[in-house]
Amino acid sequence: MGWGDLCSYGHPTQECGEIDKMVAEGMRFTQWYSADSLCSPSRAALLTGRLPIRVGVWGGERVFANDGSGGLPKNETTIAEVLKDAGYATGMVGKWHLGINEFLPGDGRHLPHHHGFDFVGTNLPFTNHWACDESKVHLAHPNPIKCFLYWNATLVQQPFRHDNLTASFLQDSVAFIHSNKDTPFFLYLSFAHMHTDMFSAPRFRETSRRGRYGDGLRELDWAVGEVLKTLVSLQIQHRTLVIFLSDHGGHLEICTEGGSNGILKGGKASTWDGGLRVPGIAWWPGVVAPGQVSQHLVSSMDVFQTAAELAGVTPPKDRIYDGKSLVPILLEKAPAVPTSKLPPSPRTLFHYCSDRLMAVRYGEYKAHFYSMELPTNYTEHCPSGVPKVEYYTSFDCYGPHITHHEPPLLYNIDRDPGELYPLPVGQYDEVIANILAAKLQHQASLVPGKAQCKETSTTLQPCCNPPFCYCNYKPASHR
Amino acid sequence: MGWGDLCSYGHPTQECGEIDKMVAEGMRFTQWYSADSLCSPSRAALLTGRLPIRVGVWGGERVFANDGSGGLPKNETTIAEVLKDAGYATGMVGKWHLGINEFLPGDGRHLPHHHGFDFVGTNLPFTNHWACDESKVHLAHPNPIKCFLYWNATLVQQPFRHDNLTASFLQDSVAFIHSNKDTPFFLYLSFAHMHTDMFSAPRFRETSRRGRYGDGLRELDWAVGEVLKTLVSLQIQHRTLVIFLSDHGGHLEICTEGGSNGILKGGKASTWDGGLRVPGIAWWPGVVAPGQVSQHLVSSMDVFQTAAELAGVTPPKDRIYDGKSLVPILLEKAPAVPTSKLPPSPRTLFHYCSDRLMAVRYGEYKAHFYSMELPTNYTEHCPSGVPKVEYYTSFDCYGPHITHHEPPLLYNIDRDPGELYPLPVGQYDEVIANILAAKLQHQASLVPGKAQCKETSTTLQPCCNPPFCYCNYKPASHR
Repeated sequence: MGWGDLCSYGHPTQECGEIDKMVAEGMRFTQWYSADSLCSPSRAALLTGRLPIRVGVWGGERVFANDGSGGLPKNETTIAEVLKDAGYATGMVGKWHLGINEFLPGDGRHLPHHHGFDFVGTNLPFTNHWACDESKVHLAHPNPIKCFLYWNATLVQQPFRHDNLTASFLQDSVAFIHSNKDTPFFLYLSFAHMHTDMFSAPRFRETSRRGRYGDGLRELDWAVGEVLKTLVSLQIQHRTLVIFLSDHGGHLEICTEGGSNGILKGGKASTWDGGLRVPGIAWWPGVVAPGQVSQHLVSSMDVFQTAAELAGVTPPKDRIYDGKSLVPILLEKAPAVPTSKLPPSPRTLFHYCSDRLMAVRYGEYKAHFYSMELPTNYTEHCPSGVPKVEYYTSFDCYGPHITHHEPPLLYNIDRDPGELYPLPVGQYDEVIANILAAKLQHQASLVPGKAQCKETSTTLQPCCNPPFCYCNYKPASHR
Repeated sequence: MGWGDLCSYGHPTQECGEIDKMVAEGMRFTQWYSADSLCSPSRAALLTGRLPIRVGVWGGERVFANDGSGGLPKNETTIAEVLKDAGYATGMVGKWHLGINEFLPGDGRHLPHHHGFDFVGTNLPFTNHWACDESKVHLAHPNPIKCFLYWNATLVQQPFRHDNLTASFLQDSVAFIHSNKDTPFFLYLSFAHMHTDMFSAPRFRETSRRGRYGDGLRELDWAVGEVLKTLVSLQIQHRTLVIFLSDHGGHLEICTEGGSNGILKGGKASTWDGGLRVPGIAWWPGVVAPGQVSQHLVSSMDVFQTAAELAGVTPPKDRIYDGKSLVPILLEKAPAVPTSKLPPSPRTLFHYCSDRLMAVRYGEYKAHFYSMELPTNYTEHCPSGVPKVEYYTSFDCYGPHITHHEPPLLYNIDRDPGELYPLPVGQYDEVIANILAAKLQHQASLVPGKAQCKETSTTLQPCCNPPFCYCNYKPASHR
């Protein structure tokens, strides 16, 4: 989902809904950054609190393939593992995309139950929604090879159907919450929406002014609302922090079907802010004050440290964490009208494309050492808002579409959030010197993890019924 | 002010403030259109409920000049006149820009007291903020010829100073409200902010993350808050509708100092949505439900009919009105989460540049018959976000920078609010036929008013102390 897709983030025609109510009751972040502009590295960083380059989720196509042997390394500690040790029930439902099999077809050694999740419901170990499109707008038929649904570690549907997908995720999530209402619990619910896709259950179709993209958002919105209502109905909302996040920005090349990044430049796959900045909402009635807007610079990697602090556990001390606890910000009850300028967040964030350090966000500034070229003519590319070519990608982090900037291209993001006006060379030497020092310090500490996204082997392709790879079982939970 | 300038409209670093509290307590419109993309015609239409072309506020530079003889014609009926007849006290403070003198220097025949305003406080009959810039960023010294302050019909300061300007507007407004708290009243308070300018009172300087533009917005925000607090302290908020509006979109050519139009294309002076769509907020505690977001297509011209309906008066029947009463929308208490798609607003809006009909908004669609070329390279034009040239304008409605579209360039604004993806020719014939029919019907009814913005005469130049044109009196109210 793009930074600008929600009514409360400024979209003029997306219907206001449950997520916007969540915003009104909680805290909306305007400068929440994902750790990466693609799915697998972003999720690895969210769950471990560490940059994807450290964790090893980089290389190849920057994401895990359906037939890959790589996955989130076992020596990485996830939020689920940390919280499980602290007595939390842990559950995972929805899109995983952090690896499937490692050595043998069906060994499932990278699946969520190996990463601290006791309960794993309906899940998509891998998705490429373009290949799974049932709308017949972009494809005649979904490709079963790339579109498979698991229940825990069992392949139950290939190709999966979208009609009941969100409802199944919700059903499993609500069941998990009900089962664990009397104990501390952690649920990682990861929707298939809004991954540059164009599906929704029938009852949400043609319910949005924005068309198919908006229909899907309305389904997602409904499901988020149901989760919150479950917490309220069980009266456990006062001891439950809910964080709503996107994994990266909208896919601009998909035109009106790729979502809106608001005024931010670029989108998915790039290190322009449109690729990295995401909606980020915290909801915790009675603790997080309602109607707050936080302009602090924060990262999805902060969720790990936040969870650890709230659970009172100390994360492993043998590694570097890139996140910081959000607890002080969440408890902050900012005055409705600040009386003076808030200092720019002193935070420094490192923006990578695979193993290449592309840009550094440093307080109000952002320095691009490398930047990715953007398509110049969306109008021609997108007759009536639908892309001409089946799939446009700019995933590669090396090549002629990458520009090296020496000195770095510098922007003041607070004043120029659209990255439109590079600051004049020679007038910001001190800022650049500080950024270079921070970059050197960071790089000196960096031990890249072994690239996990490179390893593929056709023998590892999940297939429920070889050689046909078609099936439709009832998930175990629903029997 | 641009559509995207406020925290509640999605700006990521503009400080949230009093206007955003007004939004939380009232109704935020996402599709509120000004009747024009420049100041004088927009204000003429707001006050009369009629298109500027009918009213005669067109021609020349599209705005009234400091030495002009034209003004809002006397045979036009303003909101103030209608409400005065209904027993309302009427007051005006701030920027006027609808004419000054007509025949003789100092005759003041176009000033607000000739248009139904009983009380007229500190006011700017004309402004060109670039010429009045005291920041020394764009000009060495303000030009006294173009920068003069009135109190009622008396020139009191030339060139005027910005330091105390907003505070004076506020002081006069609060005094008017206090004087009339026991009677129905109408106040037209028109700030000098945020007209592509870069001033604020000293105590607001360097208080915004966004720099000078944000500082100014913080001063404006403070003043709006003081007005609302006055109503609450007098306990008259339940019988007072407050509407907050901008007169047109932000001036893109001024780079970071021109404001943000959010995801909308283009800005001030153009008929792209960035020029026409504005923040529009309605606040009326106890009547307008809090936290509402309206995506209805509405116009600044609707304020006239709204005021008439609320006051129970019938506007003159001898003329065509382009506005509609907003009362049904204001009283609407929309469900927080609509269960199905809201129908596109059936409204048709006609977008002019001077006397040229450029575009027609028709429900969810917008057809451009003519479009204005946009600058292609803001980066080069705006080193570090400040424009290179002293003043860039694209006011002209005729010339080689205007493209004629036959068939019209058609967009679906609900799905493509950024006007990025023209719909394919030949697939929307029925929509275009409907738009052409509406256009013909509109044009058949149209009797253009005589162009009022053309007439200038150097003898009419306001000058308090000829030939020096420098003065600084205490306004009458403050003596």
